[in-house]
Amino acid sequence: MPQFQIGSELTYDVRTSTIFLFQITAATTPHQQIVFENLLFDPCLTVETCQVGLEGNRLHRVVVEPCQLKIRYEATIELTPEVDRPTQVNEMIASQMPAEVLIYMNPSRYCESELLARFALEEFELIPPGFGRVQTICDWVYDHLEYTPGSTTPITTASDVLLQRTGVCRDYAHLAISLCRGLGIPARYVSGYAVNLQPPDFHGFMEAFLDGNWYLFDPTRLASTLGLVRIGTGRDAADVAFATLTGQAILLNKNVWANFSTDIPDLSLIAAVSIA
Amino acid sequence: MPQFQIGSELTYDVRTSTIFLFQITAATTPHQQIVFENLLFDPCLTVETCQVGLEGNRLHRVVVEPCQLKIRYEATIELTPEVDRPTQVNEMIASQMPAEVLIYMNPSRYCESELLARFALEEFELIPPGFGRVQTICDWVYDHLEYTPGSTTPITTASDVLLQRTGVCRDYAHLAISLCRGLGIPARYVSGYAVNLQPPDFHGFMEAFLDGNWYLFDPTRLASTLGLVRIGTGRDAADVAFATLTGQAILLNKNVWANFSTDIPDLSLIAAVSIA
Amino acid sequence: MPQFQIGSELTYDVRTSTIFLFQITAATTPHQQIVFENLLFDPCLTVETCQVGLEGNRLHRVVVEPCQLKIRYEATIELTPEVDRPTQVNEMIASQMPAEVLIYMNPSRYCESELLARFALEEFELIPPGFGRVQTICDWVYDHLEYTPGSTTPITTASDVLLQRTGVCRDYAHLAISLCRGLGIPARYVSGYAVNLQPPDFHGFMEAFLDGNWYLFDPTRLASTLGLVRIGTGRDAADVAFATLTGQAILLNKNVWANFSTDIPDLSLIAAVSIA
Amino acid sequence: MPQFQIGSELTYDVRTSTIFLFQITAATTPHQQIVFENLLFDPCLTVETCQVGLEGNRLHRVVVEPCQLKIRYEATIELTPEVDRPTQVNEMIASQMPAEVLIYMNPSRYCESELLARFALEEFELIPPGFGRVQTICDWVYDHLEYTPGSTTPITTASDVLLQRTGVCRDYAHLAISLCRGLGIPARYVSGYAVNLQPPDFHGFMEAFLDGNWYLFDPTRLASTLGLVRIGTGRDAADVAFATLTGQAILLNKNVWANFSTDIPDLSLIAAVSIA
Repeated sequence: MPQFQIGSELTYDVRTSTIFLFQITAATTPHQQIVFENLLFDPCLTVETCQVGLEGNRLHRVVVEPCQLKIRYEATIELTPEVDRPTQVNEMIASQMPAEVLIYMNPSRYCESELLARFALEEFELIPPGFGRVQTICDWVYDHLEYTPGSTTPITTASDVLLQRTGVCRDYAHLAISLCRGLGIPARYVSGYAVNLQPPDFHGFMEAFLDGNWYLFDPTRLASTLGLVRIGTGRDAADVAFATLTGQAILLNKNVWANFSTDIPDLSLIAAVSIA
Repeated sequence: MPQFQIGSELTYDVRTSTIFLFQITAATTPHQQIVFENLLFDPCLTVETCQVGLEGNRLHRVVVEPCQLKIRYEATIELTPEVDRPTQVNEMIASQMPAEVLIYMNPSRYCESELLARFALEEFELIPPGFGRVQTICDWVYDHLEYTPGSTTPITTASDVLLQRTGVCRDYAHLAISLCRGLGIPARYVSGYAVNLQPPDFHGFMEAFLDGNWYLFDPTRLASTLGLVRIGTGRDAADVAFATLTGQAILLNKNVWANFSTDIPDLSLIAAVSIA
Repeated sequence: MPQFQIGSELTYDVRTSTIFLFQITAATTPHQQIVFENLLFDPCLTVETCQVGLEGNRLHRVVVEPCQLKIRYEATIELTPEVDRPTQVNEMIASQMPAEVLIYMNPSRYCESELLARFALEEFELIPPGFGRVQTICDWVYDHLEYTPGSTTPITTASDVLLQRTGVCRDYAHLAISLCRGLGIPARYVSGYAVNLQPPDFHGFMEAFLDGNWYLFDPTRLASTLGLVRIGTGRDAADVAFATLTGQAILLNKNVWANFSTDIPDLSLIAAVSIA
Repeated sequence: MPQFQIGSELTYDVRTSTIFLFQITAATTPHQQIVFENLLFDPCLTVETCQVGLEGNRLHRVVVEPCQLKIRYEATIELTPEVDRPTQVNEMIASQMPAEVLIYMNPSRYCESELLARFALEEFELIPPGFGRVQTICDWVYDHLEYTPGSTTPITTASDVLLQRTGVCRDYAHLAISLCRGLGIPARYVSGYAVNLQPPDFHGFMEAFLDGNWYLFDPTRLASTLGLVRIGTGRDAADVAFATLTGQAILLNKNVWANFSTDIPDLSLIAAVSIA
């Protein structure tokens, strides 16, 4: 089984008493197991673990008095992804989708899918439905955007990105999600760790619901879908910020890493991958 | 106990095979019980009931071939609201809120709370926290908007409304929700039936999370918070559309009604009401 | 020489003392002459004629006390358009454009050309420059929008239209103007009368500056460029509203007409037409 | 007479053959005279001077082959401002305004005054008309925005600023202009040099048309209205960019300066100042 060594280290200058919600630890799913993990706060703090939202994202809540705060997370993760042939993964019609995925067809803060529905239909309606159509959407996003750090802000939405044609990983994911939803394909945002991401950072990618499974896509092509470890799942990036603060603190430093430790899979495989 | 007679009747001209998701039936909560209900489709159809989203909204899914479709819902609802003194209902700090409400501080499609946070702080930060502050926000919304049917569209957002200063019930609720979230108060959208609403229609209002409870507010002042029956709950109106269609159908007619049948409460009471 | 009979009649219910700026009379240019015109106000009013803006748009300013106001304009217009072969009309490079056209490359209220520049380049940069490239832009707009009265509002912009893919004549013109500017082609908005427009109304179209001339384009294809009579010219529709009011008045009725009276040109001609 | 020493120096790395439009030289008006000026290009270039737009902004157009380009402007300017008592400067009603100012009531790219009109009326309609009301608008802008370099981008508009409550000089001016127009007061954008501006840079401020004159306002309070030298005038910042490029060039360095050389006026004077 492929194992991954992942981790991150954040340092904050905390100026006033501040409530932090951290969302940096790996999720547990039928296909993603935590073999080992360690979450360390320096100084030592009372840490509360919260399960939040539909998918039970794991957040850590702490109240921190003025200090220099260091938080370090390390984990060994074992993935047992379901890997399918793309040509055998079909779309589902809305009358047969499980109820719990219906909400992922609704527009959300950064994925205004109802605004982009006509564009999505015009561009992709005639593409044969299935995994390949979502791949075509991701290819279109990759081909038409220029990956440009600093070109977008935390409030940039999918329609902004469709017009300006630049962005970073979250923007790529938001646009691909919106186009999927515009076609009636449930789609959602995933934050995570990505093996060999350059430069190293937290990553944002997406899942589309096809044939009863949530399949992974990374429209930036910065990582293999077999090298992605899930942190959290949401309607868009609004749900999976790595840190949410009430108070005042400055992020001084951020290090993120992700490596294979064993059993390196053949990343050249063109595959439909699900780890949900 | 106060009982309500509610109902609605929708008629569609269905042009092609169409999948409908209806969200028109009353919810069941510890404070809202369905004494009797009847949901009738004409022609007769196979109806699937779905529980959707965090709050388990009840949707009815049907596939309809071309025809004239009539759907009629009637119910008798008993409410046992928790009614508190406004002055005794406090805000909670983020470190003590239950995990399941945290998601209702995130921005959403029509409630761009992160855009309005500075405005919210500037206008309401110095108001004493608690039920009264949310009431002040709702009063501000009521005072600064003009209720104008037709002035907004399904894609109008809270920031649009803050600028243009007109809207209908959903716009009032979206703005009030956004301002609450901007202050760190969890807030969410509720669709429902409202007693004596003029003109009769489905209604949109909001809940804020205070002191461990979801309290009702209607910034339009078109209905008493003691005369509201919940259909569904969501981040904003995107989650609780009364009908979502995949296919082609024209709404020919819509009738909605809501009346007290017994035990009319004193609506003049200024009260903090919770039915969640 | 082709002559046109044009005119319009507007009726207002004036509620308070109101200042009107009307912009409904034909312009005079080297290629457009007024053979006869008559502007009638009922009741009789003191009318001030204003020349406004870079192109000397002709506005009529009146102060009206509460009454029912009727304004009627009739004119016979003679056009002597310059008609060129499309293939002989080239683009100009920015270093050779006359100074007075440079301002028509700036973004304006409803033509956010800087937002759409990357899209314009991606879609049209490889098209051979010249009249044909502007025609290609207009064809793209025609092909990708659906003419849908009521789908847009007075505040709809070109980027809104590019996303939602519906609009009316002003929206078509705004989008085509923005795409031209995005490629470095000066472009501007023209309001006017259009022969045989169905349904009859004021019309909005555009001009692009090519080879030393302003050439006409109507991306809606609702009128021949040889059947257009200019009222006013502006950066976008913000500059050429047919009526601007300070006060309170309700438009009760609007009739607009435009007919050829003599010398009907062959409208099937594919031609580059300039009347500026 | 007060004299000013102003100037700027720009250095570009020109990568491809590039057309530049520079707008950095002082304007000449009845109240602003150029005593001396020198505009130097290194390497030496053929420079074309263009008069652009309604107010005859002076632009310099050059075509530059790949090189390191330095452009240096120095001038001595004499101002003879009209200085009036604020209490004696009234607003004009729209029926009495000269035709040439009417266009400055239209919305423009970064000043969506029609969007903000209801807000403007709500907030400022009851303020007594005149210079004092425009001053109240500028005070409101100063009080409600936080001057934050980097918080806005070249596409930020007045309505963005009204929501997010941060910005730089151009954003302050755009918001004040929009609020004036929303009340029916013609208002326009001015780029210029400002004495003692910290940090030194080109500055953006505004003019409102009152009592037959264009009066200066600087809602940032970063400069005295008696220390402002006009470069160009426009509907908003879209019309007065200090450099517009067709091609590829990187700005390596920018120095801007402005000093009094003689006759320092009493800047503490609260005065209505016009230099148009």
